[in-house]
Amino acid sequence: MDTNFLLQTATAQELYHRHAAGQPIIDYHCHLEPALVAEDHRFRSITELWLGGDHYKWRAMRTNGVPETLITGSESSDWEKFQAWAATLPYCFRNPLYHWTHLELKTAFGIDKLLNPETAREIYDACNDRLQNDPDFTARGLMRRYGVEVVCTTDDPVDDLHHHRAYAEEIVNCKSSNCKSPKMLPAWRPDKAMAVESPEAFRKYVERLGAAADVDIRTFADFVDALQRRHDFFHAEGSRLSDHGLEEFYAEPYTDTEIDVIFNKVYDGEELTLTEIRKFKSAMLYIFAVQDYEAGWTQQFHYGAMRNNNSRMMRQLGPDTGFDSIGQWQTARSMSRFLDLLDNEGHLTKTILYNLNPADNEMVATMLGNFQDGSVAGKIQWGSGWWFLDQKDGMERQMNSLSLLGLLSRFVGMLTDSRSFLSYPRHEYFRRTLCNLLGNDVENGLLPFTGYEEKRLRQMVEDISYNNAKQYFGL
Amino acid sequence: MDTNFLLQTATAQELYHRHAAGQPIIDYHCHLEPALVAEDHRFRSITELWLGGDHYKWRAMRTNGVPETLITGSESSDWEKFQAWAATLPYCFRNPLYHWTHLELKTAFGIDKLLNPETAREIYDACNDRLQNDPDFTARGLMRRYGVEVVCTTDDPVDDLHHHRAYAEEIVNCKSSNCKSPKMLPAWRPDKAMAVESPEAFRKYVERLGAAADVDIRTFADFVDALQRRHDFFHAEGSRLSDHGLEEFYAEPYTDTEIDVIFNKVYDGEELTLTEIRKFKSAMLYIFAVQDYEAGWTQQFHYGAMRNNNSRMMRQLGPDTGFDSIGQWQTARSMSRFLDLLDNEGHLTKTILYNLNPADNEMVATMLGNFQDGSVAGKIQWGSGWWFLDQKDGMERQMNSLSLLGLLSRFVGMLTDSRSFLSYPRHEYFRRTLCNLLGNDVENGLLPFTGYEEKRLRQMVEDISYNNAKQYFGL
Amino acid sequence: MDTNFLLQTATAQELYHRHAAGQPIIDYHCHLEPALVAEDHRFRSITELWLGGDHYKWRAMRTNGVPETLITGSESSDWEKFQAWAATLPYCFRNPLYHWTHLELKTAFGIDKLLNPETAREIYDACNDRLQNDPDFTARGLMRRYGVEVVCTTDDPVDDLHHHRAYAEEIVNCKSSNCKSPKMLPAWRPDKAMAVESPEAFRKYVERLGAAADVDIRTFADFVDALQRRHDFFHAEGSRLSDHGLEEFYAEPYTDTEIDVIFNKVYDGEELTLTEIRKFKSAMLYIFAVQDYEAGWTQQFHYGAMRNNNSRMMRQLGPDTGFDSIGQWQTARSMSRFLDLLDNEGHLTKTILYNLNPADNEMVATMLGNFQDGSVAGKIQWGSGWWFLDQKDGMERQMNSLSLLGLLSRFVGMLTDSRSFLSYPRHEYFRRTLCNLLGNDVENGLLPFTGYEEKRLRQMVEDISYNNAKQYFGL
Repeated sequence: MDTNFLLQTATAQELYHRHAAGQPIIDYHCHLEPALVAEDHRFRSITELWLGGDHYKWRAMRTNGVPETLITGSESSDWEKFQAWAATLPYCFRNPLYHWTHLELKTAFGIDKLLNPETAREIYDACNDRLQNDPDFTARGLMRRYGVEVVCTTDDPVDDLHHHRAYAEEIVNCKSSNCKSPKMLPAWRPDKAMAVESPEAFRKYVERLGAAADVDIRTFADFVDALQRRHDFFHAEGSRLSDHGLEEFYAEPYTDTEIDVIFNKVYDGEELTLTEIRKFKSAMLYIFAVQDYEAGWTQQFHYGAMRNNNSRMMRQLGPDTGFDSIGQWQTARSMSRFLDLLDNEGHLTKTILYNLNPADNEMVATMLGNFQDGSVAGKIQWGSGWWFLDQKDGMERQMNSLSLLGLLSRFVGMLTDSRSFLSYPRHEYFRRTLCNLLGNDVENGLLPFTGYEEKRLRQMVEDISYNNAKQYFGL
Repeated sequence: MDTNFLLQTATAQELYHRHAAGQPIIDYHCHLEPALVAEDHRFRSITELWLGGDHYKWRAMRTNGVPETLITGSESSDWEKFQAWAATLPYCFRNPLYHWTHLELKTAFGIDKLLNPETAREIYDACNDRLQNDPDFTARGLMRRYGVEVVCTTDDPVDDLHHHRAYAEEIVNCKSSNCKSPKMLPAWRPDKAMAVESPEAFRKYVERLGAAADVDIRTFADFVDALQRRHDFFHAEGSRLSDHGLEEFYAEPYTDTEIDVIFNKVYDGEELTLTEIRKFKSAMLYIFAVQDYEAGWTQQFHYGAMRNNNSRMMRQLGPDTGFDSIGQWQTARSMSRFLDLLDNEGHLTKTILYNLNPADNEMVATMLGNFQDGSVAGKIQWGSGWWFLDQKDGMERQMNSLSLLGLLSRFVGMLTDSRSFLSYPRHEYFRRTLCNLLGNDVENGLLPFTGYEEKRLRQMVEDISYNNAKQYFGL
Repeated sequence: MDTNFLLQTATAQELYHRHAAGQPIIDYHCHLEPALVAEDHRFRSITELWLGGDHYKWRAMRTNGVPETLITGSESSDWEKFQAWAATLPYCFRNPLYHWTHLELKTAFGIDKLLNPETAREIYDACNDRLQNDPDFTARGLMRRYGVEVVCTTDDPVDDLHHHRAYAEEIVNCKSSNCKSPKMLPAWRPDKAMAVESPEAFRKYVERLGAAADVDIRTFADFVDALQRRHDFFHAEGSRLSDHGLEEFYAEPYTDTEIDVIFNKVYDGEELTLTEIRKFKSAMLYIFAVQDYEAGWTQQFHYGAMRNNNSRMMRQLGPDTGFDSIGQWQTARSMSRFLDLLDNEGHLTKTILYNLNPADNEMVATMLGNFQDGSVAGKIQWGSGWWFLDQKDGMERQMNSLSLLGLLSRFVGMLTDSRSFLSYPRHEYFRRTLCNLLGNDVENGLLPFTGYEEKRLRQMVEDISYNNAKQYFGL
């Protein structure tokens, strides 16, 4: 993993080192905990940082035959868990974890050794020493180290965003380079406001929303009003993006009266029919989209995950613990109807579509073109390889299909989508992969690299690494 | 883009230059306007030729932020539109448009410069000068330049084919090399005869069909009789292929009485149910297929496009203006039933299946083998990469899967499916891609290249470029 | 096809020759006829061995325009059929048959010549001479030649396994190296016990099952009891695997009473509704899985084939004659529910999932991780490229996706799934392909190859070739 890791050609190397490596990071979608930034959290160990919540690693360990006690068990020590991970890692050859892990060791800790049972103790101690003692190895320090300019967290409409506010005030008032830290902006993720499968949980959520918005919610109109107030509040706090986690898209026909009735029914604790659920979700998706359009935001849709497949482990550990996988839905028609409805009424805002099943890649890549309207370059975007696809092969397939079926030049590029302060090297991984694709094309005679076109290609690397996101999101 | 563009190995280069480059073109499926050939149309500018109807370029321009006025607006001049395209093209790096454009400039106009804002005026003037003044730069002249031997247009059963007839008479009577021009044959595309979703439009079509066939259509039997008469007429005018644009295949069980009733119902202006629509389409697909079988034609099926996704632009510009995309249908079972029904009754004619979603590639590639009956080599064909897939990656994936799951040697090869007289270099692109695949295999030790096998491989290149289509279609 | 066939790098060559080539073969799933092993069958000709039942070759010949009489016709001689195959093979460039054929000629017969019409007679005679006269060219001799350690056949619960028993007794008693032969174990394939689509055939099967198990089957409970007795019998005869051929997975909710009623209904000759069929299959899949869990077996699921598409040829030749293809089903949800139900009740045994449509690859690859529980390394496996995907590209795609989304290191590797005694070179093909992937990664700087990691990589090749299967199946 030397300086030209992943860069197979001289052109790729030059493009990367001159035009990509130095660009700041705009991490426009992630799952960092705002509290950790606001409190400038210091990690007690590399185990907390690496294994405290990373379900990618947990899945690898379970596959390798590691018992759950050494993965998520409270009875195992940090060192024991780290040992179990170090014993698993050499079985991860060809899995992206193998590269992520060593890229993180190298770029954060300056450690060039490979992690395995023989080096585990030395690496564990070296990492922990930095984490515990080096003033630059806090949450904010790690972000500074990677040149992060802005991060957008993922927040619920009921959140009061006090960590965002406290942090923003602190960095505004700070003048020394020591406290020079990235912007942290909230982003709007109102999934619970359409989760009407469970009437009880939905009612509780409505009550929390009413309290947060200071609205006495009795009707669907009140509900929407409360959401709008929170949307306004998020906007005032700097939010410029929304995000939605969907199995599939919903664009069923419905009337306002129907939605009023459905809302009352579920609020009163009654189970909805499948048709009612789909109608309600269709209505909510539309309302959210119009709110985003009116505020000039970008809306994001992450669709296609099949979650919580293992009910035994769901009971034991809860959601987001490594029991989700790639689903199968045929949602092209609904996706098209949803976007068309908005476009038709002049309410379609900037939009990013993320699919989880790569079998959908070409469908999504060609969907974009149906709704590009010339108002904003790259107005409808195809999100970079998401979750299981967020690795070299997944990135390459997304960029290749986007290139063939759309304009790669207008791509807003990489995001971490991560819970970890050590995930920023994935931007480096992405940029190396991008430069490698372009370099190969140049050396294979598929792209020109002289005069006007050479300048364009160099600019394109900088744009996808940074400028496009900067301009597109306006953060 | 030199003489060995896309040809990475010495073997590929030799195969291409000796066995592919010089083969004539049989463009067995395209959307050229017969009138332009019959009148030997002269284009007023490169803008008319390139941007007058090419929705691939329009999509790229919209994605790049170009306003619609500069794309399809009547208020913009040819030069303004060309400028907008020249400014967009450098943002098309890695999109097939980048290669198509320069291949067309080079092979038609002898221009080696790259198109960008700095070269736009010079290239615009040079192209226009040839188009306006050079006697060889008419519709027919361009076809001659590319060695086109025959083109099959795409025609509605109600068409009177008078342009085909006039042109055929003219070239038969012409003796000088100056007027030596390709054969232009009609092909049968009866989509409207099964478009029963709109009773009003369907009735109008039935009336036009009755007038064209000189049949007073009062019953479904009359309707079929009228279609048969037009089929006979097309046959007499040289047609040997049909084509069908489908979302999915239809093979529902139905009775003749049911179809009679459905026909009367829709003809009388009543909306059909989904079940009725599927039954009617199933009946029509079957009847069309039997007509083709009896006439010894080849039937083509282009399935899987999701069309007219943008209703605002549909109102503004109509269909086929760049708002279609790749759909998702699970049609394997119906496709199988449809082909089986025909085979079972001895009515299965030569057939070409084109899918738009590459996620269907392997399903289609293995479907062929179910109905190869030994009567005609490669009787059931998988069509070359269609529409969004008609580019290097799409071609390679189609040829690779066809190779692995069927016999590439029996492939009838490339077609343009195009509305443009400048699309013939795509045959060159295809042939270079084919030779490159074979050359790589030889140099990687995956294919032999001595003695008997060397001759076979050389022959295979010529066959896929030309001989297979010549023999298969019998045009 | 020299000694480094498919091995593009020095690392690949070293890995293959030192760590893969010499490993024994555990062919844990195949369709060999036990009788041929028990009787140590001698083949009358290469035609019997190659063309007697290989529907891959039949499909290629039909595609190439060979009439059925020369493929499956009883009126054609062995030589005529061989000639027809020899004339087809040069049209199979890029099809796996081209490599399989020559790999078999080389490794079994020591023939380096390429088969084509000019060499056909010579090769035919040479092969037949060995088959008829060489004592090592019997069924068992061929297995010895390829280092086969164990094969698992595929057997119906009603089979009495007398060939397995006779053979086992013979080799146990044999002491000379001459009779040193692989273990042959039965495997449990109870597809007919859930094939309730045809009441008549199902009843007949139940009667045969009752006779085999010595149970008077009057109720569903009797039926399950009979299956359990046969399962016990198979276990006693050495079976440690089951296998199921499914279109899709079934995990519908049902009650025991419902299943009792459905069983009685179908047993009494009544057609079931689609819902009843799905409920019954859901019940059977669950019961089979629990039986396997209790016996400590591995369960295999081959899903996604669309079979018997050509009804004309089905009447003429019966099933498994080359008229099957890749289907399309959206079965992720049912697959997940099925596995979850078992896991939730502590009844999920070791499991191998095989998909036929490569569009499902990533869905299946990520399904594994949902149910890895740390008890057995690689407990849930993704089966190697199956049927149409059992070739270089299919293997590479499976291994690449498995690498990215799971742990390649824990893969149990290759199986032939074949009816032929000449299919063992596919293990060599697989191992070469594996080593080539790893070698490329090393030479591209994607995998380390020094110290601890070098040892691990070398071990990994041996594990996937042999050790993993040995340990996982415990045969």
